[in-house]
Amino acid sequence: MLLTEIIAKLGGKLVGADINVNSIKSLDLAAPGEITFISESKFLPKIKSSQASAVIIKEEFISDITIPAIVVADPFLYYAQVSQIFNPILQLERKISSSAKIDISCKIGNNCAISDNVVIGKNVVIGDNTQIYPNVVINDNVIIGNNVTLFANISIYSKVMIGNNTVVHAGVVIGADGFGYAPDKKGVRHKIPQVGGVKIGNNVEIGANTTIDGGTFSPTIIEDGVVIDNLVQIAHNVTIGSHTAIAANTGIAGSTKIGKFCIIAGHAGIGDHVNICDYAVVGGLTGVGRDITKPGLYTSSYPFNEFKEHAKIAIRLKSLNDMFLRIKALEDKYNKYFGDNNGQ
Amino acid sequence: MLLTEIIAKLGGKLVGADINVNSIKSLDLAAPGEITFISESKFLPKIKSSQASAVIIKEEFISDITIPAIVVADPFLYYAQVSQIFNPILQLERKISSSAKIDISCKIGNNCAISDNVVIGKNVVIGDNTQIYPNVVINDNVIIGNNVTLFANISIYSKVMIGNNTVVHAGVVIGADGFGYAPDKKGVRHKIPQVGGVKIGNNVEIGANTTIDGGTFSPTIIEDGVVIDNLVQIAHNVTIGSHTAIAANTGIAGSTKIGKFCIIAGHAGIGDHVNICDYAVVGGLTGVGRDITKPGLYTSSYPFNEFKEHAKIAIRLKSLNDMFLRIKALEDKYNKYFGDNNGQ
Amino acid sequence: MLLTEIIAKLGGKLVGADINVNSIKSLDLAAPGEITFISESKFLPKIKSSQASAVIIKEEFISDITIPAIVVADPFLYYAQVSQIFNPILQLERKISSSAKIDISCKIGNNCAISDNVVIGKNVVIGDNTQIYPNVVINDNVIIGNNVTLFANISIYSKVMIGNNTVVHAGVVIGADGFGYAPDKKGVRHKIPQVGGVKIGNNVEIGANTTIDGGTFSPTIIEDGVVIDNLVQIAHNVTIGSHTAIAANTGIAGSTKIGKFCIIAGHAGIGDHVNICDYAVVGGLTGVGRDITKPGLYTSSYPFNEFKEHAKIAIRLKSLNDMFLRIKALEDKYNKYFGDNNGQ
Repeated sequence: MLLTEIIAKLGGKLVGADINVNSIKSLDLAAPGEITFISESKFLPKIKSSQASAVIIKEEFISDITIPAIVVADPFLYYAQVSQIFNPILQLERKISSSAKIDISCKIGNNCAISDNVVIGKNVVIGDNTQIYPNVVINDNVIIGNNVTLFANISIYSKVMIGNNTVVHAGVVIGADGFGYAPDKKGVRHKIPQVGGVKIGNNVEIGANTTIDGGTFSPTIIEDGVVIDNLVQIAHNVTIGSHTAIAANTGIAGSTKIGKFCIIAGHAGIGDHVNICDYAVVGGLTGVGRDITKPGLYTSSYPFNEFKEHAKIAIRLKSLNDMFLRIKALEDKYNKYFGDNNGQ
Repeated sequence: MLLTEIIAKLGGKLVGADINVNSIKSLDLAAPGEITFISESKFLPKIKSSQASAVIIKEEFISDITIPAIVVADPFLYYAQVSQIFNPILQLERKISSSAKIDISCKIGNNCAISDNVVIGKNVVIGDNTQIYPNVVINDNVIIGNNVTLFANISIYSKVMIGNNTVVHAGVVIGADGFGYAPDKKGVRHKIPQVGGVKIGNNVEIGANTTIDGGTFSPTIIEDGVVIDNLVQIAHNVTIGSHTAIAANTGIAGSTKIGKFCIIAGHAGIGDHVNICDYAVVGGLTGVGRDITKPGLYTSSYPFNEFKEHAKIAIRLKSLNDMFLRIKALEDKYNKYFGDNNGQ
Repeated sequence: MLLTEIIAKLGGKLVGADINVNSIKSLDLAAPGEITFISESKFLPKIKSSQASAVIIKEEFISDITIPAIVVADPFLYYAQVSQIFNPILQLERKISSSAKIDISCKIGNNCAISDNVVIGKNVVIGDNTQIYPNVVINDNVIIGNNVTLFANISIYSKVMIGNNTVVHAGVVIGADGFGYAPDKKGVRHKIPQVGGVKIGNNVEIGANTTIDGGTFSPTIIEDGVVIDNLVQIAHNVTIGSHTAIAANTGIAGSTKIGKFCIIAGHAGIGDHVNICDYAVVGGLTGVGRDITKPGLYTSSYPFNEFKEHAKIAIRLKSLNDMFLRIKALEDKYNKYFGDNNGQ
């Protein structure tokens, strides 16, 4: 593909010869015939040893470059878009496998691929150009949009809606019962039925083995453009605002609302009935037990130490309240002898 | 269903007209013709704007109510039970799919539903009224009770027993090898076979994509009435006491014993060979590395902060042992100059 | 099996009669006719009440033993090896199920077992003696070695390589897209294609429902002899060095390199682009956000407390910076009045 062909699709300005490139790689990995990108100035020195034949770069660095370049405002974003051209989502052959079990009441759109051993229940509606990998199970009354990709071994319970262009990775479970019980006097738990389902928007991506529970009365909601990593738990009645990103191993407890354009880092635990405002960033391994009302970065995790050093801190942490009171006592003594300001 | 029909099944006292209701919802969501419930006094004001036609309520609040009511001691528990009437567990059509692969040595009870592509190994015994969703795999020598529901894509290894009325959600893996190795001098790990299997009691519910490993010599045990959320890891040789609840993303390490009626909140990590007594409550994101011998609430997680504020604390935490010693030094100085009690 | 037969395979020295044993169990569980082992001196008293007919033991404890014994340097390692003899990995019947869907372009080795409903895509190569449980899905261009075991419901994306003798437990997902996006000015995320695949070495074991993402340009790498527990997330571009062990619920973020012979305990969270040296040990629930350059034990988790006690510490933790400054002020006052060394 000529650089000018890329520019015709994605914008940018050509500097140098209009050569052909056949792939995009990082500075280290690019081979002759491939284009690379410089997303930060610290990577600029690497261009000298790179074998790339062209580079995506900001205007301000163009004087350092001797190979053909596409000048853009955001080389990292442009790289993602070029890579999408060279590496489109793989498309399964458009056919419905004879081993797929599809209830006669289903409506399947045009140009779908439904693979071996897929099982689809009653009254399921699937849009056009949607592809389903092998061994996916879809229960009754599910609605799936256009251009959706469902990878292998996914389980979708009933009352789930999935929007257009959404990608769900292998092993994901959508719409299982939320974790709700009413304990009796003895502490025996009585199940609270969870019949609200799940509503997933457009352009969402859901990572492998993630679980999204169905709501109690009304749906758990994943809005447009949300991206969720692997092994994430989204509990019942949660709302994830549009374009929020949630990294792996994170859990969001019941009835919590996360705003738009948030970032929740890995291994975070967001408590139940918490409200997090738009544009909040929650650090890794962070527990959030109360609302976040102001954008910004929040964390509860402390740095790791060598065990010996850590143990010393841990033992003093136990005395922290005592230390506080002892400082107060010392201050009071001082003030008694010398007056409050003498020592300043 | 008439309010008196509900009362005939579940108890309670009718106050007002014996009307028909067709569903149960929360105060906000209930529509005309539906019953709602007031579990806490703080929700009482909402009844005025609710469209519900009837309400489940405590005796003490009945004077505030103008619609038909069922008076009970525990409205939240009663709500769960009413909702179970209106929303029973979905029942698959009672048949054995022609695409299910069931070894000839298996014994399948009466009135079971075994769905498409289910694969059942040798000498498996399944009780009556049990339903199995598509693409479940059950290895040899598994015993499953009556009225069990196994959702889609579950994997059950050999030597697993599952009691009556137990519900296992999609993607769960039961009986995989526990994580046991003996390192040699070089540090190379030699696998310790795990042949003890898993024994799961009656009325247990296991959340989606949770994993329960088989024991080394004798079974990992999940007692009656235990409820486990999604993405929970139960390691080999663990015992979970009856009616204990474990929230999502929690891990219980090997050979740990958790008592009865415990609550383990989300994202907790319970170490190996730990004993936790009955009625203990472990907070979210809490690490438990030693025994808990007294009922109560235990936690190890500290509140989150804005990053800037948090960084200040984190840097001082490194000096905590030093701070402790400096307070001690200041106290010693005081005592030297003024005597121990002078400053009090 | 005679004790001398075991010794012929594994080494060790016979003390006492050369009896037959038919299984190996722990001291508590061993029955007559079974052999047991004493791995630590603290278990020595238990031998008196054990019903075992023989014991694996260190030379130094042999005088306490009255039953036939195998004397070895490392009884725990020897136990693992004996147990492997009595409990070899179960072997499926060597046949290819008629319900398996295998693309005609695949090359399947000799003596493989491919179970019901397995789906294998194009150009897949599988070595000899490999066994695949039901409902496994393998996409195009995957290469799998000899003597591999893939348990049920595993999903393998394209561009995955798996070495010899590797065991993958049920529900694992290998090669799903890494979590990579480039945000535009509005914060909308644009997917970065992940086409590097995964390369898994020989003698690796991967726990149930674990996820290993494919790399961006080049493979995510799991070296020989690595053992990974359940529900672990390995992000794109990670390298796990040979013979490292990773316990359950742990997450390793993108582009991180973990050395050889490391131990990562449960529920740890390793940040992105971190380098951890060989022989490092990371404690449970520990967050690692910077490099580890020296072998040793590292942790960031603090002990749990009863909630009341914990709350007192938590509130003082907020004042920790203030406490630090107040100690400094007190010290300065002292020094002003008494000189720096007077109080010592």
